[in-house]
Amino acid sequence: MFQCIGFAAADAATPMAPFSFTRRDLRPRDVAIDIAFCGVCHSDLHYVRNDWGRTVYPCVPGHEIVGRVSAVGAEVSRFKAGDLAAVGCLVDSCRDCSSCRAGLEQYCNTRMVTTYNGKDRETGEPTLGGYSDRIVVTEDFVLRVPEGLDLARVAPLLCAGITTYSPLRHWKVGPGQKVGIVGLGGLGHMGVKLAAAMGAEVTMITTSPEKERDAAALGAHKFLLSTDADAMAKHAEYFDFVLNTIPVSHDVAPYMALVKLDGAQVLVGALDPLKPFPGSALAYRRKTLAGSIIGGLPETQELLDFCAARGVLADCETIPMGEIEGAYARLAKGDVKYRFVIDMASLKGAAAAA
Amino acid sequence: MFQCIGFAAADAATPMAPFSFTRRDLRPRDVAIDIAFCGVCHSDLHYVRNDWGRTVYPCVPGHEIVGRVSAVGAEVSRFKAGDLAAVGCLVDSCRDCSSCRAGLEQYCNTRMVTTYNGKDRETGEPTLGGYSDRIVVTEDFVLRVPEGLDLARVAPLLCAGITTYSPLRHWKVGPGQKVGIVGLGGLGHMGVKLAAAMGAEVTMITTSPEKERDAAALGAHKFLLSTDADAMAKHAEYFDFVLNTIPVSHDVAPYMALVKLDGAQVLVGALDPLKPFPGSALAYRRKTLAGSIIGGLPETQELLDFCAARGVLADCETIPMGEIEGAYARLAKGDVKYRFVIDMASLKGAAAAA
Repeated sequence: MFQCIGFAAADAATPMAPFSFTRRDLRPRDVAIDIAFCGVCHSDLHYVRNDWGRTVYPCVPGHEIVGRVSAVGAEVSRFKAGDLAAVGCLVDSCRDCSSCRAGLEQYCNTRMVTTYNGKDRETGEPTLGGYSDRIVVTEDFVLRVPEGLDLARVAPLLCAGITTYSPLRHWKVGPGQKVGIVGLGGLGHMGVKLAAAMGAEVTMITTSPEKERDAAALGAHKFLLSTDADAMAKHAEYFDFVLNTIPVSHDVAPYMALVKLDGAQVLVGALDPLKPFPGSALAYRRKTLAGSIIGGLPETQELLDFCAARGVLADCETIPMGEIEGAYARLAKGDVKYRFVIDMASLKGAAAAA
Repeated sequence: MFQCIGFAAADAATPMAPFSFTRRDLRPRDVAIDIAFCGVCHSDLHYVRNDWGRTVYPCVPGHEIVGRVSAVGAEVSRFKAGDLAAVGCLVDSCRDCSSCRAGLEQYCNTRMVTTYNGKDRETGEPTLGGYSDRIVVTEDFVLRVPEGLDLARVAPLLCAGITTYSPLRHWKVGPGQKVGIVGLGGLGHMGVKLAAAMGAEVTMITTSPEKERDAAALGAHKFLLSTDADAMAKHAEYFDFVLNTIPVSHDVAPYMALVKLDGAQVLVGALDPLKPFPGSALAYRRKTLAGSIIGGLPETQELLDFCAARGVLADCETIPMGEIEGAYARLAKGDVKYRFVIDMASLKGAAAAA
């Protein structure tokens, strides 16, 4: 029996009392993990609120999971009890299509199984996420975590980290390049840290002048206020690459103007309809607008190893499980630096009090 | 003194009577060309009508120019009188910026000088195009034309040809790839021919069922009717690359859906605001939407040599200068297979009759 926090109704941001449930029996290639920390992603809030109309209740969110292996199935070879381990946004995929074979499980041609609100490929049961004391995941979708890191600060790498790392790598960001990161939230703050760690000159681009000092502290070399028309004009065609983390529909044209010939703007947040922009914004300088989601298992492991080697970790506020409601309220206002992370030790207390 | 056909007023598709004008004196590096043929591009019509609000009158259109060199300046080394030569959409650029040094003069950082409606870098005078018996262009912007080709069918390569060739090359289209060409006009017909010549499997994608036979005759291996929802659904994620030649604002999302993981749709026609489409149309499969305009001088020369070697020429209707008004009317209706080309020998007769 596992303890978790779940959400029961579409319009309730208030969690249910902690409840127990049975995860699937340990299959031969399964790894059971005692969860130490789970990050709070903005999509958790979307699912809890049923913003996308596809939430299966009760919903147990959470896909930025770190902890220690408690048990392994008979055929597991890469993990043993006591190992540090992590689980990100996906817990399975077809493993047979061209995408999966290329290590791009997030783009599985028959759809990945998401860590929560997905459907178990064997049982058809809904998957339940990391707001829980344990999780059971097939070995191939469990990541190794180097020892000696602050685990709370590792958790957000599993979504916010990989979502920004993957496009930075895919578009070959590195030394000598000028990179703009649009938006300073959970994703944006990882984008700044990672792009800087990759050797690029990093500019934080935001509507919030008060974020300038924070951006510098995160490693941004420059700051560009997107509401300052003169500053934006001065940076026309300045960037090789712009990573746009704005999570809602908006006008991408002002950021397209910042990209140089043959440069790219990549969207990792805005999945809704974009405001109309002219084809000439792309064609006149052969620019690219693209999009990207999370990352595959090999690349997520690469990220964890990269971050361990460079000491790049998320900035987070650790909260007990009992404060999730208030955390969601602050998250909705963008009032977090830069990720809430739930300390799962607090779940036992919450369960006992219930 | 040169003879030309020009247009005098914003709303008049009726040409002025042929008039004479003086091209600039032959500068040391200039090449004078007796024009044999000039293609009629859709943008000629846009300029004549002042659709873009920036036409300088009298306007002498024409940027698909082939002919023979009649005279060269003292320092010209690559051409001599009698050589076949061609001029495309640009007649000068700064020649010093990173784009120009890379042979991407069409993306000159300080703006290329267009063949007509541009501004001469020395005199500041408006440039006048190829609806004329002669043109004078600086050597570096004159292209070599192999002997033995049907020159009327060479002319459209200088705009319709290079506009499609350049993105096909830049995005590395070749054998084993599935390429969709959207729209069967002047650009689309060259896109089909060139992508097929590069070894790709080519699908013509259009709203016009009656174009199926023509598409096959041009070299398309498959035909996809974009108004057929079932057929479109069957081709979801089928293409490595989609070249979109639609010249007006439209919804790019249905064509984005045809592109596979990491594939690209490239716009070469639609420069106006695109209909809104969701960021998820890109992000869920890491797709690219990009744009491209014409090509640089080295690539245009490469195209001419490629077409000569492969026997790839435009399909065109040759008209006398006196029929330009009717040609524009038919062009506006899309009633041309696939390019009108003016036989400049007819200009002398028209001038004599005027």
